Amino acid sequence: MTAATASGREDTRTRLLATALQLFTEHGVEGTSLQMIADALGVTKAAVYYHFKTKDEIAGAVAEPGLRELELVVEEASRLRRRGAQIDHLLTGFVDVVVRHRALVALFARDPGVTRALADSWSDIYGGRMLELFAGPEADESRAIAAHAAIVGIALTGGAPQFAALPDDTLRAHLVEVGRRLLGRPRRAT
Amino acid sequence: MTAATASGREDTRTRLLATALQLFTEHGVEGTSLQMIADALGVTKAAVYYHFKTKDEIAGAVAEPGLRELELVVEEASRLRRRGAQIDHLLTGFVDVVVRHRALVALFARDPGVTRALADSWSDIYGGRMLELFAGPEADESRAIAAHAAIVGIALTGGAPQFAALPDDTLRAHLVEVGRRLLGRPRRAT
Repeated sequence: MTAATASGREDTRTRLLATALQLFTEHGVEGTSLQMIADALGVTKAAVYYHFKTKDEIAGAVAEPGLRELELVVEEASRLRRRGAQIDHLLTGFVDVVVRHRALVALFARDPGVTRALADSWSDIYGGRMLELFAGPEADESRAIAAHAAIVGIALTGGAPQFAALPDDTLRAHLVEVGRRLLGRPRRAT
Repeated sequence: MTAATASGREDTRTRLLATALQLFTEHGVEGTSLQMIADALGVTKAAVYYHFKTKDEIAGAVAEPGLRELELVVEEASRLRRRGAQIDHLLTGFVDVVVRHRALVALFARDPGVTRALADSWSDIYGGRMLELFAGPEADESRAIAAHAAIVGIALTGGAPQFAALPDDTLRAHLVEVGRRLLGRPRRAT
């Protein structure tokens, strides 16, 4: 395989994922077929199959960049020494990822297809580690519940259609405030 | 139709819904067929069809008692005069319903079938009115976001599998606290 071919394939993959996100947003994952994706790209269904065997695989790949960013934030936070600094870094980083990928978050939140494709990696790896960092190593149930509510509250509010028109900075500030109240963190001096 | 027949049919309906909830919890709504429900009840599929035409109708009917309780709480809260009293009544009432029906809430939260069956009535009627009561009539975006986060945070945390073993009273107290922090309500003297 020449470098040009490899890069052509990479291009197709990138275009495929962008097209898929657009179609998923418009028709839902369940309402989008591999054939629709192929048609929108102007390629054959076989070309789509070359990259992905199932729609769930495509949904997973669409979500991957956001999940990778979140993973990075979790890693960074877990390397900090002070508990307060860990919570603050994870909170602002998490809110950043949610706001930056809000179209995707909205899709996850309302579409069973994406949720199913991501349920395992999301809940087990990221969800578990975020909960632990937010609630602390010896979390009592009160802290664990507040941390859980912060994670789902931030994610599902960030992706909610009624706030879709808010500017990123505004949404970000309000979501960080939601997290601070639930996690008992003071406002930062600004 | 005699009274005895009517009451027999009512019994079948009640048993049908209890059986459906059990099968939904075990296999998910998507993984449960009308035939499975009929088999578990020891009746024919035609007998199930007599009561419900589709699985979505059954999912809707399973959720109905919880939604009716919530509707009542919303009505009561909206009749109170003071804003603080409205918020407190809706908050404790909402948490009560979530905790009392947590098996159902857990099912909603993770099962596309139930979510789809309820999406319209839930989001438009209850979700909208709860948001309005929590955030106030002239809600600025900060209050609207906190109210949204409180609703989804309480519902999805109350139905989360990791808190399924907590006693009702404990879970209730922690979820009310989540709501108080987000809605800026003082703790009640106890």
